[in-house]
Amino acid sequence: MASEQAPVEMPATFSKYTKRVMLKIILGRDDGGVGLIGQSVVIGGWVKSSMEIRKQPVTPPPAAPAPQVFGAGEYRVREKLDAVIRKAPQPSISILQVSDGSCVPSLQVLVNSALANPCQVMPTGTCVLIEGILQQPSVQGKHYVELQAEKILHLGLVDESKYPLSKKRLPLESLRDCSHFRPRTTTVASVMRIHNSLTWATHAFFQDHGFLHVQVPIITSTDSEGFSEKFLVTTLLSKGKKDDQISPTENAGVSVEAIRASIKEKTKKVEELSRTNSNKEALLAAQQDLMKTNELVSQLEARQKAKSGVTIETRKFDFSKDFFTRQTYLTVSGRLHLESQACALGNVYSFGPRFKAEKLESKKSLAETWMVDVEMAFSELEDAMDCANDFLKFVCKRILEGCVEDLQFVLKRIDKSVMERLQFTISSSFERISYAKAIEILRQVAGKKFQSKIELGVSLTEEHESYLVDEIYKKPVIVYNHPKELKPFYVRLNDDGKTVATFDVILPKMGALIRGSQSEERFNVLSSRMKELGLQKQQYEWYLDLCRHGSAKTSGFSLMLEPLVLYATGLNDVKDVVPFARSFGRANN
Amino acid sequence: MASEQAPVEMPATFSKYTKRVMLKIILGRDDGGVGLIGQSVVIGGWVKSSMEIRKQPVTPPPAAPAPQVFGAGEYRVREKLDAVIRKAPQPSISILQVSDGSCVPSLQVLVNSALANPCQVMPTGTCVLIEGILQQPSVQGKHYVELQAEKILHLGLVDESKYPLSKKRLPLESLRDCSHFRPRTTTVASVMRIHNSLTWATHAFFQDHGFLHVQVPIITSTDSEGFSEKFLVTTLLSKGKKDDQISPTENAGVSVEAIRASIKEKTKKVEELSRTNSNKEALLAAQQDLMKTNELVSQLEARQKAKSGVTIETRKFDFSKDFFTRQTYLTVSGRLHLESQACALGNVYSFGPRFKAEKLESKKSLAETWMVDVEMAFSELEDAMDCANDFLKFVCKRILEGCVEDLQFVLKRIDKSVMERLQFTISSSFERISYAKAIEILRQVAGKKFQSKIELGVSLTEEHESYLVDEIYKKPVIVYNHPKELKPFYVRLNDDGKTVATFDVILPKMGALIRGSQSEERFNVLSSRMKELGLQKQQYEWYLDLCRHGSAKTSGFSLMLEPLVLYATGLNDVKDVVPFARSFGRANN
Repeated sequence: MASEQAPVEMPATFSKYTKRVMLKIILGRDDGGVGLIGQSVVIGGWVKSSMEIRKQPVTPPPAAPAPQVFGAGEYRVREKLDAVIRKAPQPSISILQVSDGSCVPSLQVLVNSALANPCQVMPTGTCVLIEGILQQPSVQGKHYVELQAEKILHLGLVDESKYPLSKKRLPLESLRDCSHFRPRTTTVASVMRIHNSLTWATHAFFQDHGFLHVQVPIITSTDSEGFSEKFLVTTLLSKGKKDDQISPTENAGVSVEAIRASIKEKTKKVEELSRTNSNKEALLAAQQDLMKTNELVSQLEARQKAKSGVTIETRKFDFSKDFFTRQTYLTVSGRLHLESQACALGNVYSFGPRFKAEKLESKKSLAETWMVDVEMAFSELEDAMDCANDFLKFVCKRILEGCVEDLQFVLKRIDKSVMERLQFTISSSFERISYAKAIEILRQVAGKKFQSKIELGVSLTEEHESYLVDEIYKKPVIVYNHPKELKPFYVRLNDDGKTVATFDVILPKMGALIRGSQSEERFNVLSSRMKELGLQKQQYEWYLDLCRHGSAKTSGFSLMLEPLVLYATGLNDVKDVVPFARSFGRANN
Repeated sequence: MASEQAPVEMPATFSKYTKRVMLKIILGRDDGGVGLIGQSVVIGGWVKSSMEIRKQPVTPPPAAPAPQVFGAGEYRVREKLDAVIRKAPQPSISILQVSDGSCVPSLQVLVNSALANPCQVMPTGTCVLIEGILQQPSVQGKHYVELQAEKILHLGLVDESKYPLSKKRLPLESLRDCSHFRPRTTTVASVMRIHNSLTWATHAFFQDHGFLHVQVPIITSTDSEGFSEKFLVTTLLSKGKKDDQISPTENAGVSVEAIRASIKEKTKKVEELSRTNSNKEALLAAQQDLMKTNELVSQLEARQKAKSGVTIETRKFDFSKDFFTRQTYLTVSGRLHLESQACALGNVYSFGPRFKAEKLESKKSLAETWMVDVEMAFSELEDAMDCANDFLKFVCKRILEGCVEDLQFVLKRIDKSVMERLQFTISSSFERISYAKAIEILRQVAGKKFQSKIELGVSLTEEHESYLVDEIYKKPVIVYNHPKELKPFYVRLNDDGKTVATFDVILPKMGALIRGSQSEERFNVLSSRMKELGLQKQQYEWYLDLCRHGSAKTSGFSLMLEPLVLYATGLNDVKDVVPFARSFGRANN
């Protein structure tokens, strides 16, 4: 009946593959859904908030007697009536704000108490699947349409006392331990939709420019950075493994005293670097150095104790009996593997998870992160800079155009400058300066004292980067040609013999979001760089092969997705933009 | 100069972000590049094959004397001339077939020996970056244009004796150990481009239908299948870990004799199932069962030995001191985690790596695989079937339209029926039959003896599936409602109490490519299913929460990408379609 009256604009009964209409089909229309008034639809979602309106008595007695003081008998009758009402609760209408995650606004749904018990449908978080008629809102307000429920098709109840989202306006941090419910909040749902758009835009950019998506191995024995803590992947500890797969350690033989002396110094260095918490690469290198030294000492001590008759168990695993017959890790970066694909297929990218077993308290990094790695054949440093530049502008443009509603919500609730920042990223030309020039400029800054010293050879800290971008240039800055000590072994040595062909793209309020480089294609140079850094050549034989046979110049870059989501939403901590707690070390899923 | 003569159809000098024109821009044109003749371009790539043409003497002596028998003196002169020629080699032209991975055909490039030493440019695998003029082919053949080299901008040499692709027509299997060079072959490059198109089409399908891409955790403590071998992820074995992070095992206390009796029987069962090598789920369950029992016995034996005075080291790791403070694994499937996102955002998908630590010799499965997981809220079994059906048709259509050249190459070299198969997948309506009906139909097959018995309660083997699809229906078949014993704990129990709401999509010559299900949304049913299977509830608390608070009906499915690539290329083994050897247990990168 209703559908006869309705303007037949679109058949709104069901969306594809789901037994309801997605709310964005109704509420995302230019008219806010008004054109669908009169249509019968099924909607599903979760109750965001609710209120109950008691119905007025439908038929007041005609010519009601004037109010009067009850006599004793009359009062008793009234009590009885009240008891009857209490048994059959007073008719009411539950007004639910229902959201299904497809768009920012909720749909107002009116449920008569005869249809469903208000105690059941009203709690925040209740799942409802409701058939009803779209109508003009009964109360004028921010809604253009509301749904008059006619049939309850499914109810998923909530135990309000235990449901973590029952309270209103929870701070985002408090939701980190219930990441499986978190996207039910308006804020996190908006962030997830922006997250999705950035993922989709990333693929679109590279596909549009003729790049091929290729996979890189997640489990690998190649360490592409050399200074990151890694997760070991093994089946040796599985239940049922036999004891003979574990072989005893061979201890190294060096003097303890000779080493202990240096530990104090190394510890001091780590402490110093930790305090500034900015020069990350240097800190990691120092930490690893210290760790190795500590390890050596404890091995030696164990040996001495063993000699003195105390049995110390120092065991090592026989990785030749592991699944891959050698020690394997979760990949830290896909760049090296991508290079082998680029040296066959041309321009390639890979978008997937990368891992670092680091518990550094950082708001920008995660143990498990999604990264876009890009590699291009016949390409040099400035090509990679151009590509990174265009890529960033493209994805910012895409979400500005495609996520209007979500960005407006973000603007209202989280960050007033979000639109402006994205717009500015698109329109400004990124400044390009060499590392040496950056240092020079920062040293000349008068009237500003930086926490850590500015000198050639050390990484720019977040404070330095921020000053360059936010104060001096007031736009994104690309810093290139870093000292070789600060970058991994595979980057191309410049002609000065001191700097390497690398670049960082630094964004306002965000810091370095992209790190790129041109790879070393000259076998001899690469080989001696590896020697210099003490890397085990045999681990990299396949990579060296690329220089041995048909070596090409290649360049590329990596971008971590989650900091980009921060940039696009104004949130401050990556822990709030990943769907699962595992990524930041929590243990609940 | 040349560019003045050329029809200015497009500026072909460089492609974006790379110092050359991609060959598909020249050779992928409808005219095969003819319209660009006369233009100066830079191209880069790797030499596929080559030949050398010695130049005719440019100016033959006018009125050459008639050939005559050499006298002794003249012969000596000739020898000297030969020596001179040997010192300054005879002028020649190297004709190179150069490929850059952007398209199937190679570009014919003519390099004068004055420009580059033939010994350097001619070996297969040599990397060249060459500037030259596009011209009409000097020899008519399959080329429409060729490049006359004018400048060699880069040469990446090859040591032919060590380069694994020097030989022609290498069988694909022989390339598995040099996966870093493999995509330089025409076949693997085509497969990689189809692989890329399938990835891109997958995102396109779900984005077009309003699904959000969300991430699932790769490192997880939740086991979503319950019967797969998993990779453990840990930092406990890293160098530098201290010994006190390892705590001694507590042995269980049960009678050895009581258990040993059952081992014989269990072993027999595994052997039986291994022989048929078809009922995978049952085999895995039986293997795990046996393993657990074996483990128990060895623990008990260790205990007895310990009691008898022999020190046995049985150690267990204290995972509370591990990175995530508990035991964590690489995820086997993303479905459970996706469900928590679907119960907030509606329809979601996740496309990423999944892991199984199984060394089963299979041509369809890998230790590291890429999977598309899909989950939809307010959706039941048939919705997921509809979606899987449409998704498969969509991706087949996309590559039929977008990878014409690659498919034609595949058709010529690998599989004559590839186009036909894809076309048929798009046009045929998938048959849907229940598991019970499938069993019934197969039992009624006369004149065909199956290797393994057909009876209710056991999985369909590849042989059964193939018979259904290739012989009976001659089109894709969806088998649904399997016995609950064959499927994971989280699938929805049907009203009969025996079968569950699951489905497998079985394709011709490929077998089951997609597995889907509706999830159990009823807390009590789910809870008792978990009890029945002996699952530890505490590991799944967060998942049970979804049923406790606002539970919705959801359904979805998973598809492994690599078998889909096999389906689209006619290759037989997934080891040949993944870019890296790690995925199938090799150790070379």
